[in-house]
Amino acid sequence: MSDSTWFTEQHEHSGSSIGFRVKQKLHSEKTPFQTIEIYDTTDWGKLMVIDGCMMVSSRDNFLYHEMMSHPALFTHARAKRVVIIGGGDCGTLREVLRHDEVEKAVQVEIDERVTRLAEKYFPELCEANDDPRAELLFIDGIKYMAECEPESLDLIIVDSTDPVGPAEGLFNAAFYTSCYKALRHGGILVQQSESPLVHLDLIKSMRVAMKSAGFQSAKTLNFPQPCYPTGWWSCTMVRKGADLAGFRERGAASKQFPTRYYNVDMHRAALAMPEFVREALGE
Amino acid sequence: MSDSTWFTEQHEHSGSSIGFRVKQKLHSEKTPFQTIEIYDTTDWGKLMVIDGCMMVSSRDNFLYHEMMSHPALFTHARAKRVVIIGGGDCGTLREVLRHDEVEKAVQVEIDERVTRLAEKYFPELCEANDDPRAELLFIDGIKYMAECEPESLDLIIVDSTDPVGPAEGLFNAAFYTSCYKALRHGGILVQQSESPLVHLDLIKSMRVAMKSAGFQSAKTLNFPQPCYPTGWWSCTMVRKGADLAGFRERGAASKQFPTRYYNVDMHRAALAMPEFVREALGE
Repeated sequence: MSDSTWFTEQHEHSGSSIGFRVKQKLHSEKTPFQTIEIYDTTDWGKLMVIDGCMMVSSRDNFLYHEMMSHPALFTHARAKRVVIIGGGDCGTLREVLRHDEVEKAVQVEIDERVTRLAEKYFPELCEANDDPRAELLFIDGIKYMAECEPESLDLIIVDSTDPVGPAEGLFNAAFYTSCYKALRHGGILVQQSESPLVHLDLIKSMRVAMKSAGFQSAKTLNFPQPCYPTGWWSCTMVRKGADLAGFRERGAASKQFPTRYYNVDMHRAALAMPEFVREALGE
Repeated sequence: MSDSTWFTEQHEHSGSSIGFRVKQKLHSEKTPFQTIEIYDTTDWGKLMVIDGCMMVSSRDNFLYHEMMSHPALFTHARAKRVVIIGGGDCGTLREVLRHDEVEKAVQVEIDERVTRLAEKYFPELCEANDDPRAELLFIDGIKYMAECEPESLDLIIVDSTDPVGPAEGLFNAAFYTSCYKALRHGGILVQQSESPLVHLDLIKSMRVAMKSAGFQSAKTLNFPQPCYPTGWWSCTMVRKGADLAGFRERGAASKQFPTRYYNVDMHRAALAMPEFVREALGE
């Protein structure tokens, strides 16, 4: 399969790979944190790759960004203060700021170059960066959460790379304890949690660590994401001091902004658990 | 990405590829209809490839086979007579025969070699082949349906390859007209309908052709399928003389056989339509 016109990510853990046909490599640089490459593809628009892993493509990022933001925001009664850990491509920030109830959204990305390259190659994802409610910080998210004012946040979205390298410290009880303290009563933490088919052990250990930090009522939501290993992805949501039963269905049904994947039915659908997931998570 | 230890399928239409790491190629043959290869993979069990396209892996076929059978069978009040067009790996047949109400299930696969190789390399999928209710025919499914006794069937499952090559004639109004005639009142036709993300035009044209043949009330169900392009797949279901609202939820909830993906919640979830699909299909 040697072919310089394809970028292929071989995912060692699952023994599976995903590739996109490319027209050219537009950019490559080594930052203090990682290596970032940008490709122009034939069918998926621009593609950002970090340390060899596909992060975001123009064509399919709407799935991930909508599902990392809208289910949590329509579960919380009124999330005024939101923090995004990671999320340097700014796509999650854009979705969060579609919600009028959000008064402040802080994006805490460790690597400023991710955002600068997103501004250049994914300008549509950065169109809310100038929103007066947005604040972009380029510092360590683990430290930021550890030092965050207690009970000051309504929603924390952990939109990180895989739990290796810079993101490793975002998947443990110490980080979740920081998040728990920073959230107000009823506050929600949602984190990308890899593929249900090949990362169930990670999902289980995340849920255990989240509960050990004090959180209640975990839900793992499923959605397609073609550029990530197996094409099937998840996020895991927990809450402080309240359960996660239900969401604001009427609010979601009457939302005043466009989405391409998310709607009330897809929110419910994402909450449904395949039989093998239900069994593995003991629910 | 030259690496002889990976089998990679490059999907021209979508400019995307999917690969599995392989230990060895176990078999390769050219039949009168197609070229069939069998690989042993490191993480996905056995893999069958037809004309370069991944057909079935040991690890993820449960998603497809369960979703091609159980939603239709739990929608029909009591499907006694079932025909599977294609489906030579016998995995759909196995799922169909888990239903006690099924009195007869005929699998009509054009290429006997697919089934013979499945018996050798995917014996778990063939474990219902000796069921007295099963009949395996190795003939042309288009001709079979054209000559089928009118109003003799309750469910037709079209479990075919992509709409090129031998399966091309399974995606047009002539074939759907044969299916319509062969079904009893209330009978259901369900057909694999490719990826919602890259084959929406095909799904739309299938639905138009199905309706022109007399069918009502199309539903397109979504589910993950890592070994198929984009990792996200669908099937489209139509009914003769009745609509498709609802399904036998109590029957599904009290089913007496195991599944790994399908359950009542996942049935409902599969029926939910992402916003861009809903808009494209005009619903």
